Amino acid sequence: VSFTLAELAARVGGTVVGDGTRVVTAVRSLDDAGQGDLSFYHNRRYLHSALESRAGVLVVGEGESFPGRDLLVVADPYGALATILEALHPVARPSPGVHPTAVVAPGARLGSETHVGPHATVCEGAVVGDRAVISASSYVGEGAAVGADTLLHPHVVIEAGCAVGARCILHAGVVVGSDGFGFATVKGVHRKVPQVGTVVIEDDVELGANVCVDRATLGVTRVGRGTKVDNLVQIAHNVDVGEHSLLVSQVGISGSTRLGHHVVMGGQSGAVGHITLADGTRVTAKTGVTEDTRAGEMVSGFPSRPHREWLKAMANLFRLEELRHRIERLEQALTSSRSKE
Amino acid sequence: VSFTLAELAARVGGTVVGDGTRVVTAVRSLDDAGQGDLSFYHNRRYLHSALESRAGVLVVGEGESFPGRDLLVVADPYGALATILEALHPVARPSPGVHPTAVVAPGARLGSETHVGPHATVCEGAVVGDRAVISASSYVGEGAAVGADTLLHPHVVIEAGCAVGARCILHAGVVVGSDGFGFATVKGVHRKVPQVGTVVIEDDVELGANVCVDRATLGVTRVGRGTKVDNLVQIAHNVDVGEHSLLVSQVGISGSTRLGHHVVMGGQSGAVGHITLADGTRVTAKTGVTEDTRAGEMVSGFPSRPHREWLKAMANLFRLEELRHRIERLEQALTSSRSKE
Amino acid sequence: VSFTLAELAARVGGTVVGDGTRVVTAVRSLDDAGQGDLSFYHNRRYLHSALESRAGVLVVGEGESFPGRDLLVVADPYGALATILEALHPVARPSPGVHPTAVVAPGARLGSETHVGPHATVCEGAVVGDRAVISASSYVGEGAAVGADTLLHPHVVIEAGCAVGARCILHAGVVVGSDGFGFATVKGVHRKVPQVGTVVIEDDVELGANVCVDRATLGVTRVGRGTKVDNLVQIAHNVDVGEHSLLVSQVGISGSTRLGHHVVMGGQSGAVGHITLADGTRVTAKTGVTEDTRAGEMVSGFPSRPHREWLKAMANLFRLEELRHRIERLEQALTSSRSKE
Repeated sequence: VSFTLAELAARVGGTVVGDGTRVVTAVRSLDDAGQGDLSFYHNRRYLHSALESRAGVLVVGEGESFPGRDLLVVADPYGALATILEALHPVARPSPGVHPTAVVAPGARLGSETHVGPHATVCEGAVVGDRAVISASSYVGEGAAVGADTLLHPHVVIEAGCAVGARCILHAGVVVGSDGFGFATVKGVHRKVPQVGTVVIEDDVELGANVCVDRATLGVTRVGRGTKVDNLVQIAHNVDVGEHSLLVSQVGISGSTRLGHHVVMGGQSGAVGHITLADGTRVTAKTGVTEDTRAGEMVSGFPSRPHREWLKAMANLFRLEELRHRIERLEQALTSSRSKE
Repeated sequence: VSFTLAELAARVGGTVVGDGTRVVTAVRSLDDAGQGDLSFYHNRRYLHSALESRAGVLVVGEGESFPGRDLLVVADPYGALATILEALHPVARPSPGVHPTAVVAPGARLGSETHVGPHATVCEGAVVGDRAVISASSYVGEGAAVGADTLLHPHVVIEAGCAVGARCILHAGVVVGSDGFGFATVKGVHRKVPQVGTVVIEDDVELGANVCVDRATLGVTRVGRGTKVDNLVQIAHNVDVGEHSLLVSQVGISGSTRLGHHVVMGGQSGAVGHITLADGTRVTAKTGVTEDTRAGEMVSGFPSRPHREWLKAMANLFRLEELRHRIERLEQALTSSRSKE
Repeated sequence: VSFTLAELAARVGGTVVGDGTRVVTAVRSLDDAGQGDLSFYHNRRYLHSALESRAGVLVVGEGESFPGRDLLVVADPYGALATILEALHPVARPSPGVHPTAVVAPGARLGSETHVGPHATVCEGAVVGDRAVISASSYVGEGAAVGADTLLHPHVVIEAGCAVGARCILHAGVVVGSDGFGFATVKGVHRKVPQVGTVVIEDDVELGANVCVDRATLGVTRVGRGTKVDNLVQIAHNVDVGEHSLLVSQVGISGSTRLGHHVVMGGQSGAVGHITLADGTRVTAKTGVTEDTRAGEMVSGFPSRPHREWLKAMANLFRLEELRHRIERLEQALTSSRSKE
């Protein structure tokens, strides 16, 4: 596949600075790109690399200038990158068909043009939508549902009764529908509370490698439409994650907590159970959210605080030596003034 | 399956308030329940939902009152829920038998009525107890043991020589017996110290999805009877977890650390290596335990401190602005008193 | 297998104190060892166990003395342990051959004496080096490479196009080559940026159970030669980890961050994206590195600080009550001195 720079500019609604007839065959990083390649620059940290790059074309934001170089100027370089990558590096879907080693129960229903890979298992009553891909060794449990155009990478487990929507991507090692962590403790012995609910992963969700989403005790654990979840995230029973949220790697959300839409949780952050993070809440990395948040609020620390308060507290924490010295001087001053009396 | 309210009350040792002849067919959440359903109320946060619920019956704690509604009053609503769920929503075990795609070594021993699912592997010398379930794609290594009535969900890995007790539940993606992280560094090169020990998971243990338990360097890594472990927890080599402990999601326990019985570690907390957490220690979320604890102690923070000290320190941290202002006023007062001299 | 104490001393370059003709048949922990066993003592915490141990031989560091006991005295007991374990407890590699249930694409190339276990999948264009082991249910994607003598434990996933070097060990549940977490957000909708790069795991790397290494957006995510990674670690897209580094369990490294060689990151620590941790940086447990570090620097806390500053700040944090009291006394003193005026 190849495109001229002018063709790519038309696709992304951008402006060519330089030679629009230049042919682009691949997208490469600033360091790796050569004359036939396009690269992109959207972070000041990499200005040096951009200046040094041998890329034939740079995609840059408005207002950037690289004299003597062919540029594709756009409002949103990262978004343009998505479009250009889709054009130049289309991802091949595996061809339809059920591998002879796959085990598909007689009562499972496969849509048209589905792919079921080697050693996959699709259980009784499971429903797999059109063009869905169930990769090698993946498991779709009894009565579970996988929506149209959804891609399960190898080694995904969807436990019985759980539902994954359309156009989702589940990476290797994802577990949807493990039991919630619920025990009734009687005289020091933890007795399992059966987890009889399910999980609903709505349309257009992406779940990273080895993510765990527990089934509800009763009802459903939900991950809302368009939400993207990074690797190794834990979503406990009865959690409700709203639409278009972002959960960065190693986040943990405790039972029955609700996230609104467009919530962003930074890496290694968490939330205690039974609270609500309102729409647009931003949780910084490593934070442990301990109480409800307001819409659009940014919170940090553990216990969590408004981000600005936390920043100030952290700054003060590292100036405690100075406070200590000032107190000492005050004490000395007071002692000496007393001795004069 | 259905029961009258009076029958359920007899099972859980509770008291009916209202119509004991009412027929209950399912347990549902407060929001989802209808007239034929039973729901339960045990957390004040959900009082509004309980009042609004259309559930035919509510299970409530002693002293609760919902006029005009049929109630099942018990000492422990959560425990009663476990009993009622077992009665109304019994979990079907897969039927005994070895799936034709499973690979069971000639020298492996399977107990009576075991289930071995599609694409499972049971290696030479492995022993699987009566009625145990080895689900799809699970792996039981050479000489490993799985106890009677134990349930391995799909995609569980028990490495060679490791032993899992009776009535355990291991969720999808669990790895038991990966090598401990042990290296001898000589001139900057990390040389592997062979990990020749094993893992023992005692009876009635539950391990959440994608939990990792490393084999010991020498001897055993142990998880004691009745202990429950949530998703994505890390248990390093030679760790010894006592009986009836609870490890919440994303906990990490470093090598050779010992936990007594009834220890509770909150989400995303950890413990450094070679320490002892005494019986009944409670570790709050996100804490990093850095030294031995006393029986029943509650610890927080990193480095860890007695919980009350940590709470006070956190409160003080967010009052540092105030301290700073008080010091400034003292300095000004002192300056002005000096200028008067 | 058995050796005399003198033979073992020769292998590790140590000195025998006592009976060099004593026959040693196994290595066991201090608590478990008997007369025919060798055990080792290298941590003062276990002095009591060493004194009580019934081990026939103790491996100890120079300067240690256990009167009346046969000793093997070495400069580095832990390194000696590695040598002795390799001698006395050699790990059996599975015998070469492709299991009949394995699926190996016609266009895949297997080196000599490779082992491909039950239910494994090796895709088109994949290359597996001599003597490599692809254990049960592992997956080697299209065009992926696995180096000579590398061991994939059961349930490892190497996604398409990714390369693993020679003599690596990948534990169960490892995912190499999941998509990086990259989205371009337009009007609140997160659009996937195709991740078209790959992963390169260099020679002699060990990756713990359920570790995730994301493929690069463009270019490669790299884990350098000799680096050892513990369980449940997250390595994001375009990260570059240098040679001989150590990443302890549950570490998370955000996108495009670079680690030099011999970097050590403690358990549950993390690093934000787009920064550089210089050679020999040491990151303490639970730390979140927020900015570039200098070679050999030790950093702690979140936001990260030089370790000593952080230690001092933590100590001060728990003396805030004292500061508060001193301020109160100053205020009282000032009030009373004023009232005297």
